[in-house]
Amino acid sequence: MKSEDYTQHISKQFNADLEEVRSHILAMGGLVEKQVVDAVQALVEADSALASEVISNEKKVNGMERRIDEECTRIIALRQPAASDLRLLVAATKANTDLERIGDEANKIAKMAIRLSEDGALPRGYIETRHIGHHVTAMLRQSLDAFARFDVDQAVAVVREDKSVDIEYESAMRLMVTFMMEDPRYIKRGLNVLWSLRALERIGDHARNISEQVIYLVKGKDIRHLPLSTLQDDHVLTSEEKKNLKTE
Amino acid sequence: MKSEDYTQHISKQFNADLEEVRSHILAMGGLVEKQVVDAVQALVEADSALASEVISNEKKVNGMERRIDEECTRIIALRQPAASDLRLLVAATKANTDLERIGDEANKIAKMAIRLSEDGALPRGYIETRHIGHHVTAMLRQSLDAFARFDVDQAVAVVREDKSVDIEYESAMRLMVTFMMEDPRYIKRGLNVLWSLRALERIGDHARNISEQVIYLVKGKDIRHLPLSTLQDDHVLTSEEKKNLKTE
Repeated sequence: MKSEDYTQHISKQFNADLEEVRSHILAMGGLVEKQVVDAVQALVEADSALASEVISNEKKVNGMERRIDEECTRIIALRQPAASDLRLLVAATKANTDLERIGDEANKIAKMAIRLSEDGALPRGYIETRHIGHHVTAMLRQSLDAFARFDVDQAVAVVREDKSVDIEYESAMRLMVTFMMEDPRYIKRGLNVLWSLRALERIGDHARNISEQVIYLVKGKDIRHLPLSTLQDDHVLTSEEKKNLKTE
Repeated sequence: MKSEDYTQHISKQFNADLEEVRSHILAMGGLVEKQVVDAVQALVEADSALASEVISNEKKVNGMERRIDEECTRIIALRQPAASDLRLLVAATKANTDLERIGDEANKIAKMAIRLSEDGALPRGYIETRHIGHHVTAMLRQSLDAFARFDVDQAVAVVREDKSVDIEYESAMRLMVTFMMEDPRYIKRGLNVLWSLRALERIGDHARNISEQVIYLVKGKDIRHLPLSTLQDDHVLTSEEKKNLKTE
């Protein structure tokens, strides 16, 4: 499916409606991505002013979620879409929920950033946090690009990427536990870093969910909970897409 | 809205379709509730066999999620529902996602239960875990009852209950941190208890989400992210429902 595919409707208004949902999802995605970037920066630079900004933007994200859901439901009721149009609206509703949850996680990180900044100096674990922060931000950006361009290759790449974030997360967690056992005075601060790492790992999961929705909307196939190898079978992907899957 | 309201359709098949979605959500809810109860029991009784059972049931939950989503999309495409029928299908899709996430959290708790059972004796923090476990299980059951009976009062009660779970959770967390600081050898085990508490708190959030969907489907009003006081305004509730809200 190309983004032009839905320009064939008899009703120009219907096209405009679908295009609007798509652009609202991308606008919300842009704001949420900024929230994550700012929250991670606030954390690693102990910048409580930036963290407060993230927290005050949370309402904007929630407002966008409500509007997009309203919009999707209204279009479904009014236009009675079928096939790929309906899949776009279902995928948009699901991606909308994931984006809002990512906003929630950014908000949690910002709260940890404020607590941690009160102590001043950067504690151990910040390098790992920054690294994983950049990694999941890139995943989120790629999943939004995949949504914008209906790009299955990109979406598959994000689904795969989530595994390596999980590995980095496990390793960072083990390191933090070691720090805490070495120096029990560090436990309280260490826990704030742990919660931030956990929030980042969840953001990776949500970016993966959004990418799975892109695959569903383009291919009409629900790949959630299935192993990546499923993409090789079932004629879900074209031979070109399968080649990309193998060479990566 | 009463559950009989959608029995007025000209098409008997449409009624049967909607009833089926509703009963599938409730069946999935029943399984997920059992997963939570078993996971908490496995944790507090150090029962790794029960924990393994929870982990192996996870696939069933995932399969149910896929089928319900397929079902809702198929009905929307085929029947082109409007108004309360469409709201039921949208709410079912959203509740479906929340139930699957609750299943995920139960799965995480079961994994912690296995790790903790390897050490034998019950560590500190188990009383708190059991207490919060029972609390969120009750919330989940109530939110499913509210969904089954389209019961706004019950749904409002769950939304309110979530606040007290959050308070219990914060207090249990502080206690665990104290234990860990007193005895650093306990850090590793304490973290497993912490993650379990966190998973339970998340289950409470998801039960709350399901209840918000019940309010949306019955009242046609999206109350997510709004303070509870909103329910007093905007003519969302009947005067009888408002009275219940005040006296509780």
